Amino acid sequence: MNARNQPGGTRPDPFAFDPKDATIDLRPHLVELTERRCIELLESIPVGRIAFTADDGGPIVLPVNYTWFEGSVAFRTLDRELQDLIDGQFVCFEVDEWSAETRTGWSVLVRGAAREVTQWAEREQLESIGLVPWARDVWRPRWIRVEPTEITGRELVR
Amino acid sequence: MNARNQPGGTRPDPFAFDPKDATIDLRPHLVELTERRCIELLESIPVGRIAFTADDGGPIVLPVNYTWFEGSVAFRTLDRELQDLIDGQFVCFEVDEWSAETRTGWSVLVRGAAREVTQWAEREQLESIGLVPWARDVWRPRWIRVEPTEITGRELVR
Repeated sequence: MNARNQPGGTRPDPFAFDPKDATIDLRPHLVELTERRCIELLESIPVGRIAFTADDGGPIVLPVNYTWFEGSVAFRTLDRELQDLIDGQFVCFEVDEWSAETRTGWSVLVRGAAREVTQWAEREQLESIGLVPWARDVWRPRWIRVEPTEITGRELVR
Repeated sequence: MNARNQPGGTRPDPFAFDPKDATIDLRPHLVELTERRCIELLESIPVGRIAFTADDGGPIVLPVNYTWFEGSVAFRTLDRELQDLIDGQFVCFEVDEWSAETRTGWSVLVRGAAREVTQWAEREQLESIGLVPWARDVWRPRWIRVEPTEITGRELVR
């Protein structure tokens, strides 16, 4: 019984959340993931989403296939316009998985500065890992890396 | 044979893309989706990602379970801080699906202003559609709607 409903209590607030009632709530609960677990998840999945600020000041989110390489997110750029826009920008890279059946899932956010790979040696190293763009329409010779200043993750668990 | 390799031509540019060579490229290609198809996809899936600008000026991406309702994205907010931050903000809502096996997928972006639902009647209407938050930890009485000013989508098809 909610204490607020007891005699002498105030009227129940319909938006209140009483942790004691949570025992009858069978929905998953949200837990924070360790950075180590976040990195395992980043290594486990081939597609993430890069969020950056567009020319109009609002955010844009685009899926990219990527690799987690030596502590940073690496992916090939879609076009020069995008690459010029995000080079040097503080961006957010997101990966997640979810199941509508179990209503569980996780997400990991990597926030940090995006930079174009301009050094020949670093580009060769990235070329050698064999990340092939999924789309054939445009040739994507340029690489972007997002060096994390913040890695956070959450999971909905039962 | 690439015209650039013919006698008298210039040296081949390793980053050039020759459409004639695309016939031997079996990767999927990217097509723009119609708005109608984007809306069908928005109606087909329970989880999307809201991208907004954080206090520090950088973008943040968070997955939410949502519904496409009367021409806009509707979801419950995670907390008052988030809701205060995104209310009135020009945001981006993204949904996608992809397959690592076939290397195909699609994504839809809805850009527009986020607003908190403050009208009682509108809130009742949203409550009646039965969108239940997946996580049990926090009570989410507040609704956010994203009214699209732009709906775009792309698909990688074979």
